[in-house]
Amino acid sequence: MRVLITAGGTTEPIDQVRGITNHSSGRLGSLIALNFFNDGHIVDYITTKGAIQLPHKHRMNTHLIQTTRDLEETLTQLMKENTYDAVIHTMAVSDYRTRQVFTHDNLVDQLARAIESRGDKPLRHILSETIHEAKGISSEAKISSDVDSMLITLEKTPKVIQKIKVLQPETILVGFKLLVDVDFDELHEVGLANLKKNKADFTLANDLNNINGDKHVGMLIFPDGTYKLGATKQAIARLIVETIEEKVGK
Amino acid sequence: MRVLITAGGTTEPIDQVRGITNHSSGRLGSLIALNFFNDGHIVDYITTKGAIQLPHKHRMNTHLIQTTRDLEETLTQLMKENTYDAVIHTMAVSDYRTRQVFTHDNLVDQLARAIESRGDKPLRHILSETIHEAKGISSEAKISSDVDSMLITLEKTPKVIQKIKVLQPETILVGFKLLVDVDFDELHEVGLANLKKNKADFTLANDLNNINGDKHVGMLIFPDGTYKLGATKQAIARLIVETIEEKVGK
Repeated sequence: MRVLITAGGTTEPIDQVRGITNHSSGRLGSLIALNFFNDGHIVDYITTKGAIQLPHKHRMNTHLIQTTRDLEETLTQLMKENTYDAVIHTMAVSDYRTRQVFTHDNLVDQLARAIESRGDKPLRHILSETIHEAKGISSEAKISSDVDSMLITLEKTPKVIQKIKVLQPETILVGFKLLVDVDFDELHEVGLANLKKNKADFTLANDLNNINGDKHVGMLIFPDGTYKLGATKQAIARLIVETIEEKVGK
Repeated sequence: MRVLITAGGTTEPIDQVRGITNHSSGRLGSLIALNFFNDGHIVDYITTKGAIQLPHKHRMNTHLIQTTRDLEETLTQLMKENTYDAVIHTMAVSDYRTRQVFTHDNLVDQLARAIESRGDKPLRHILSETIHEAKGISSEAKISSDVDSMLITLEKTPKVIQKIKVLQPETILVGFKLLVDVDFDELHEVGLANLKKNKADFTLANDLNNINGDKHVGMLIFPDGTYKLGATKQAIARLIVETIEEKVGK
């Protein structure tokens, strides 16, 4: 079969030398890819520069991306060119990207001027509108380090995972949900809600507090709410690969 | 002789899974380290996870750090333990770190309440104070991806380079200054100003637009304003190593 795997973490630029980065080693995604390779399947692999790279002999189908927009474009193109039996979306995608960058004084000034000339408009409305529409300093070059404090406004990025079943309704979609410091019931509940929201066939829910090197507790949740557990990255990789192989009937 | 080299780029956390990262491959710093090794010197090397690592046999004196604060601590400790003939500070250090993270509505609400109850205080003053002192959402765990827009306030990090000559006035300090899209005169002028501000012995000034793979135009500026040019990373590395060797009289 042919599968598409995303791994690593995206970066959204703040300026030409700085970015907001989702830290993700890509290690689990790379193990899933290697397990598919070893079982004889074709793997297309989308990853980021900061992530662990596949061994050389497996790199022919690797696509390096940086931003959420890059991911969306690459994934869309690949899914138009090829039919995938499964898409395993382990990549930690930036939920937000830079909208504007302000110096503290610059934003204060724009807010004060908007309030002073607001006429009858409600205060909250004018504050909200100004923060949304104010023009920041140019973020194209490198921001000077001479200013004491700065503000960055962030806007939501599109949910790439929600495009996958639109592009290929028949593909098996495995989503990932990372939480921090939740109990078992909450992990299960949020993971299942995530599965439904993204129309995923399986969701791997995990908690940052239970990830440390190769120790990695993962809960693979099925649409009916049942689940299977893995306790290492390799165990989780096998669990995902075997669950898909079984579903495809190979 | 013994030298201390910093290379790579720092990351300042936004929450447990996201950070503001200065992208720097650390490639030039690693070449400078290798050139010192090859000339028979002792190298202590401070770098970051995302940067290029030294070959295994040279890694014994490597210290991995993440934030500007980590850098300050590690560098201070090393400079208290050892005397360095030179410190070559190539690391791209975050000029700013996260102060607070707000949802858009949360900040608008705090600003509105402060303005409504401001009494006689000037508007600009109350806006400025509120943005500085308002309490954001907890940034210790992972920020939810359910909010439409967010704000991050940033504060300046301490200038680590300015501690180096305080700790060891006799060491030879090489600073780095990266600019974006400036002409030759401005590169020279800003580089020289940077040298004086940081009490550096030499400053390597470079422009992002003239860095592409191994092609890398660098201007090594001396305190009297004279300079030497290198056109590749290896040429810049040799230039720095030989300039220091000459100054130490080895």
